[in-house]
Amino acid sequence: MKIIFLVNVFLAVLALPMVAFAAGDAHGSAIAVVFLMIAVVLIAAKLSSLVERFGQPSVLGELVMGVVLGNLALIGITIFEPIKENSIIQFLAELGVVILLFQVGLESNIQKMRKVGIRAFAVAIIGVIVPFVLGTYVAGPLLLPGQSMIAYMFLGAALTATSVGITARVFKDLGKLQLPAAQTVLGAAVIDDVLGLVILAVISAMATLGAVSLGVISWIIAKAVLFLIGAIVIGQLSAPYIGKFFSKIHNGVSMKFSLAFGFCLIFAYAANQIGLAPIVGAFAAGLILDPVHFKSFKDQAIVDDVRNSIKDAPDSELKQKISYNIKTHAHRHIEELMEPVAHFLVPIFFIMVGMGVKLETLFNGKILLVALAVTLIAFVGKIIAGVAAEKGSRWLVGWGMVPRGEVGLIFASIGLSLGVISDSIFSIIVIMVILTTLVVPSILASILKKQKVQVV
Amino acid sequence: MKIIFLVNVFLAVLALPMVAFAAGDAHGSAIAVVFLMIAVVLIAAKLSSLVERFGQPSVLGELVMGVVLGNLALIGITIFEPIKENSIIQFLAELGVVILLFQVGLESNIQKMRKVGIRAFAVAIIGVIVPFVLGTYVAGPLLLPGQSMIAYMFLGAALTATSVGITARVFKDLGKLQLPAAQTVLGAAVIDDVLGLVILAVISAMATLGAVSLGVISWIIAKAVLFLIGAIVIGQLSAPYIGKFFSKIHNGVSMKFSLAFGFCLIFAYAANQIGLAPIVGAFAAGLILDPVHFKSFKDQAIVDDVRNSIKDAPDSELKQKISYNIKTHAHRHIEELMEPVAHFLVPIFFIMVGMGVKLETLFNGKILLVALAVTLIAFVGKIIAGVAAEKGSRWLVGWGMVPRGEVGLIFASIGLSLGVISDSIFSIIVIMVILTTLVVPSILASILKKQKVQVV
Repeated sequence: MKIIFLVNVFLAVLALPMVAFAAGDAHGSAIAVVFLMIAVVLIAAKLSSLVERFGQPSVLGELVMGVVLGNLALIGITIFEPIKENSIIQFLAELGVVILLFQVGLESNIQKMRKVGIRAFAVAIIGVIVPFVLGTYVAGPLLLPGQSMIAYMFLGAALTATSVGITARVFKDLGKLQLPAAQTVLGAAVIDDVLGLVILAVISAMATLGAVSLGVISWIIAKAVLFLIGAIVIGQLSAPYIGKFFSKIHNGVSMKFSLAFGFCLIFAYAANQIGLAPIVGAFAAGLILDPVHFKSFKDQAIVDDVRNSIKDAPDSELKQKISYNIKTHAHRHIEELMEPVAHFLVPIFFIMVGMGVKLETLFNGKILLVALAVTLIAFVGKIIAGVAAEKGSRWLVGWGMVPRGEVGLIFASIGLSLGVISDSIFSIIVIMVILTTLVVPSILASILKKQKVQVV
Repeated sequence: MKIIFLVNVFLAVLALPMVAFAAGDAHGSAIAVVFLMIAVVLIAAKLSSLVERFGQPSVLGELVMGVVLGNLALIGITIFEPIKENSIIQFLAELGVVILLFQVGLESNIQKMRKVGIRAFAVAIIGVIVPFVLGTYVAGPLLLPGQSMIAYMFLGAALTATSVGITARVFKDLGKLQLPAAQTVLGAAVIDDVLGLVILAVISAMATLGAVSLGVISWIIAKAVLFLIGAIVIGQLSAPYIGKFFSKIHNGVSMKFSLAFGFCLIFAYAANQIGLAPIVGAFAAGLILDPVHFKSFKDQAIVDDVRNSIKDAPDSELKQKISYNIKTHAHRHIEELMEPVAHFLVPIFFIMVGMGVKLETLFNGKILLVALAVTLIAFVGKIIAGVAAEKGSRWLVGWGMVPRGEVGLIFASIGLSLGVISDSIFSIIVIMVILTTLVVPSILASILKKQKVQVV
């Protein structure tokens, strides 16, 4: 120890005129500050997993931790404020939700999705129409008289899109992604993400242009059809060949990881290019990639390891059995390889969603009351959609559709930036998003515990 | 399949008016483009691992692939140019090298480092003094007459710092990090990173201020001593307790991952704050964290899995042995958890280093000649430093110290931005960096193969 200490002391003695220099090295410092921000977010997220002790899904802990960190400025603690504005942290959060949906896609099964397809579609349609109509024609004119029709439509639109990320995390945290109800909710959430974006596009066009030409819309629709069919068909047909081709270059796990992750990112990009949310592409990529693809890659280290541990076993049949068993595991699943990357990035997303919540909007009594009424509509509109689900899981599906999360916030901020909605409608939407997001995880968890739903 | 297709077609039909909207959503699109860039870089990196077929370390493939992608603009292909300038990709590259050095630190052993401590220090000192003197007093005045002394000193300084990242990758790719020679090179590279930065700070101060007060320097040195001693002592003493504390909140692998990664990032940040390179902090964090820390975390899934696979084995002694064996493995090492994150980020760093290389600087005959002479000095200066290593590995250590990589480039760009060095000296430094970086990996690999060096 002594020598290394002395060396270190010596190094330190020599090293430090650096600080004077570092002041001029703004780029390096800016990057290092982001390192610290990531560390703070990760450790805060892990501290918040204490909620699991109380049977709550850890995503709730992360959201609440985010709300706390994001609002400490109210009591004068402003050190966490720069995290909210940092563009690299924002990027990592976006990448986090893309990876989460990729994981959810990987765990979802295209066969099971097909089974729930019609039901999911029905749930999505009802879950979009009911809140939109209630928001636009009931809540808006009754609770906020004197504003423009387009403002009411923005309010209605903000009520439509379920935040698939939050619901997916709850099901994932509790190990229930394989439930048919979970598949229905995820399918429906993806569908109404799409429907919500369509509504938003139409309303935005109405607010800015007045009208949109039918020819333009048709052309865009044609492109989209080609894209989605193309992505699924080409993806399913080509994945095994791509796997085989790259395995000839290198058949280690790092190749498998890079291919799968690259696939996910390209789909996310492609979805964005045709105007869908990147998460829709990531989910599709996960759905297409199957454990059977990329089977040529293995983790030789695990194989060797286990072979060594059983090499002097007396019973050769058992030996073979274990050897075979573990060899299968050596084909590490893509899910397993994605997991540490998800540990890194997914909590950043949920902490950031929580940090985006502005508690001071809760301080105005009148707005708060209207917001509570709008939130009620948000709950009712989605819970009603649950009737389209199969018997026995209606309640679960309905509640699963409730969280609006970041999608509602995006709608609100676009409405505000177009000058179409007022600050008060903005605050109302934000409160609705907070409440739907914060309340649902624990309700879903308790429904899942009470209801012994059958796992297929 | 039919139904899911129909649903998808329907979705697509509805979804696509989005494009019109997406055009206004510059933020979302910018993020999606980065997704594509990451996918391109990862897949390019994996294509380049073809070099392993020819016995070359994959880092060489990544560097060459980077040089190719970064210079396709010379033949009119400019689609990869935006990757070079993207600040998020630059951040991910920086994070990649931090993770690489953290991994190297984890694989290095503080006891072994102590053994090589004095030798590493001697190698570092010689490897800094010889190239600096040769560059400043020989190469500069002889080859580039008529320039200022400070310009020659910048040239000399750019020759000092070994790029620990490149050498570490070569040893890691070839599985030779445990060699005493590898530990000597890594220790020396870290030390001369520090020495190089000191030289740079002093020269920068001379170029801008003329002189620096001894009092200021002393205060900075004092802070540094306290920091380095503090980091190592507090780190070593506190890690087990931190591990115990967090394991009471949650004892899963995600907690282990977040703690270790958070530790790495905080050290990287702290190193940057006192003026050291973040990679020095990351390396120190890896050195301090030991497999014995955080031992309370386990991967229950693996334990259950193996228990099931042996539950009907007849021989109970063997059963116990295997059970114990795999249980130990279930305490997944931090190294293992960091690996997928490294698969994601480390190649981005090396592709980016390659992309930073400007091949057009090679087109000027005179500059090219001088550059070759300076490169020779760069090689000789470091190979001489090998004499301080133990007998039998002098050649290996000497060559291991040669790559200058990004550190030399940083020096050159600072000299240029201060207006102290000319464009031609800049080009010469860039060429020297290219050659030392590109040539060494394959030479090291061939030395390691010929020389059967003893593994401790």
